Amino acid sequence: MENLATLLGKYGEEGDKLLFRILNSGDFLSAVKDKDLTSMEQNRLSSLICEKGLRYDLTVPFARYVVQHRDEIIFPFKRYQIQPVWRADRPQKGRYREFFQCDVDVIGSDSLLNEFELIKIIDDIFKRLRIASVIKINNRKVLSGIAEYIGEATRITEITTAVDKIDKIGIRAVNEELNAKGISGEAIKKLQPLIQLAGNASSRFSKLESLLALSETGMKGIAELRTLFSLIEASPVICTVVLDLTLVRGLSYYTGTIIEVKSKDVNIGSICGGGRYDNLTGVFGMEGVSGVGISFGADRIYDVLSQLNLFDSISTSGTQVLILNFGKDETEYNLKILDLLRNMQVSAELYPDPVKLKKQMSYADSKKIPYIVIAGEDEIRNNIVTLKIMSTGDQKKMSLKDLLSFVKSEINQKTRFR
Amino acid sequence: MENLATLLGKYGEEGDKLLFRILNSGDFLSAVKDKDLTSMEQNRLSSLICEKGLRYDLTVPFARYVVQHRDEIIFPFKRYQIQPVWRADRPQKGRYREFFQCDVDVIGSDSLLNEFELIKIIDDIFKRLRIASVIKINNRKVLSGIAEYIGEATRITEITTAVDKIDKIGIRAVNEELNAKGISGEAIKKLQPLIQLAGNASSRFSKLESLLALSETGMKGIAELRTLFSLIEASPVICTVVLDLTLVRGLSYYTGTIIEVKSKDVNIGSICGGGRYDNLTGVFGMEGVSGVGISFGADRIYDVLSQLNLFDSISTSGTQVLILNFGKDETEYNLKILDLLRNMQVSAELYPDPVKLKKQMSYADSKKIPYIVIAGEDEIRNNIVTLKIMSTGDQKKMSLKDLLSFVKSEINQKTRFR
Repeated sequence: MENLATLLGKYGEEGDKLLFRILNSGDFLSAVKDKDLTSMEQNRLSSLICEKGLRYDLTVPFARYVVQHRDEIIFPFKRYQIQPVWRADRPQKGRYREFFQCDVDVIGSDSLLNEFELIKIIDDIFKRLRIASVIKINNRKVLSGIAEYIGEATRITEITTAVDKIDKIGIRAVNEELNAKGISGEAIKKLQPLIQLAGNASSRFSKLESLLALSETGMKGIAELRTLFSLIEASPVICTVVLDLTLVRGLSYYTGTIIEVKSKDVNIGSICGGGRYDNLTGVFGMEGVSGVGISFGADRIYDVLSQLNLFDSISTSGTQVLILNFGKDETEYNLKILDLLRNMQVSAELYPDPVKLKKQMSYADSKKIPYIVIAGEDEIRNNIVTLKIMSTGDQKKMSLKDLLSFVKSEINQKTRFR
Repeated sequence: MENLATLLGKYGEEGDKLLFRILNSGDFLSAVKDKDLTSMEQNRLSSLICEKGLRYDLTVPFARYVVQHRDEIIFPFKRYQIQPVWRADRPQKGRYREFFQCDVDVIGSDSLLNEFELIKIIDDIFKRLRIASVIKINNRKVLSGIAEYIGEATRITEITTAVDKIDKIGIRAVNEELNAKGISGEAIKKLQPLIQLAGNASSRFSKLESLLALSETGMKGIAELRTLFSLIEASPVICTVVLDLTLVRGLSYYTGTIIEVKSKDVNIGSICGGGRYDNLTGVFGMEGVSGVGISFGADRIYDVLSQLNLFDSISTSGTQVLILNFGKDETEYNLKILDLLRNMQVSAELYPDPVKLKKQMSYADSKKIPYIVIAGEDEIRNNIVTLKIMSTGDQKKMSLKDLLSFVKSEINQKTRFR
């Protein structure tokens, strides 16, 4: 929850519309006059009856936090944050009204080493999750340079908004949109070779440099991209890293590097995105502090893992030992075993109800619990337990001491922290 | 975010008022007629313009979840959940509008072993956090029995609401409130010995049994408390566990055991609470499934830890090694060291900007980073590093291989996973 004033105007016009607003509590109509109620446009009315809203992303609230705590924070400040965000969008596959973002940011340093570190984090995470991915990189300064070069420097927002759709609607429709927006035919013509530039990153940098030579901003952007790509090339990276001059990223606060990651195997939009923002803290009264960050979309990543059936291979086991419940008289003995196992860091549970053993066994089966401890009247009299190994069906009687040794050697090695 | 219909009516009248409501997105006035706008009472209007609300707790949404996924869930179902909840309350010390609850529930079993396990979890957590605590236990059935015994069975809500305040306003004011509510003088008189019952749990159980002998519900409650206390007494518990017959817990869905935990050293209200709910899923269409759960208040626990200065002793270290940044020519060599260290699971960072070494050292100092790696022109030429140990100020030149051995033996043992 944030003050709406913190969120409004930070995500563009479309973003403002997608903010969830929270009705003021108590007498929410007290600030509204009767005649306003029926005459006022909804936007103005909602701002009178709602002061707070739900986070649209983690970056803007983070900037607010940094400014608020500027005197306690040691810069450069690195933080990660995993929290839900909300967007009043029409829900559909890969697009949720409530979803989790996992953000990493470095604020207070303009070194491109930060961008490089973030790329390494992306690469490491998708390697571990076994999601084959493409990391697309561009730079907002290059986009500005291109707008200058085609003679439409003031129309950068319209141009990039159209170009952003190239993946979805194709180059032809993009050009039509540019034309409809009043971008001159000449400008659109000059734009074509740039957004369709072929070759490897290095050869495209050279071509870009010759085309954008007169744009100081454009040349700075190319230099930044060159540095970043040379850092990445010198380092082992599993993901495919590409320079994508049509990559725009919708959010208005980016000023330098922009990054977007897509799964190669599942078509679900970007699963991670981010970029550099040179002055996001400025709107909250702290000027000249550059930051860069990325945000993983946990729900889409979940969708990709589900669709590729990758959960089995990465999930860890739950309960390792189930102790059967024989009833009141056996409880004390079985609670003692439970304590002994847990003290050895073994995830164990005593079935809570003394129901039929068949039902208890079927619980173990459904939950894929690998070992069962059986300690009924008989075992208790002899101060032993029966251990059942679910994978083989074998049952062995053993002393508590032997149970603990078995657990130590077998369970700890085989089933914990896979 | 939940549908308001899921939340309304589950937390009592006061709870409904404390729900944060989310303004419908888009044309939120479309369902409202002009004349309704000015004539309607706020409550009805808010239900026309808000369909969704923010979670008041985790228990009711959990019950909704269980019913929705009843066919996929294996019962008894155990889960923990850590998420924010919201209450439109006046913020003050220990009372926040947005705070984190950490819940543990078992649903689909009415065994008191579940209550016992939850008590063990509470005990274990506050032992590890070093917060000396009192666990207060009562049973709603006993409260019902008491209401029957004093001849006011139908007035249980008013009686318990008043008795609930005994800690805050004292017994005298509670009696005045009962009187004002129209509870008969005779009933209030009969109530006194019960809520002031002295002695240990076992002797109080005997007295309760003789007083509530005619109340079937009351006797069942006492039997449940007896079972739970005998399980706890047979097990080593660090927290102080007490029977508190004036403990009520505000939420209306509890039907059996109720639990509340307070810090002994910090006066901040309950830091954990919970109880058994016999039919919370019933309102969502799944009858006869009993559950029991507890909820830790993370923010209040944070406050207690802060006030008792306990964070130092439990917090883990962050960065262990800072590599100084000498500039572009040294970057490749230093990135190689960074990779080597990280591959050994050492938390290491390269300072992102090639600023004055004094500034970089002061960053290490502020962040209490114990080791500095210095690799400038000189070190690179000889393929070595200089390691500075911040605690002693010692500096040693060594090969990369020696650095890694040092890290392996020193850093891994001393500073990781404390």
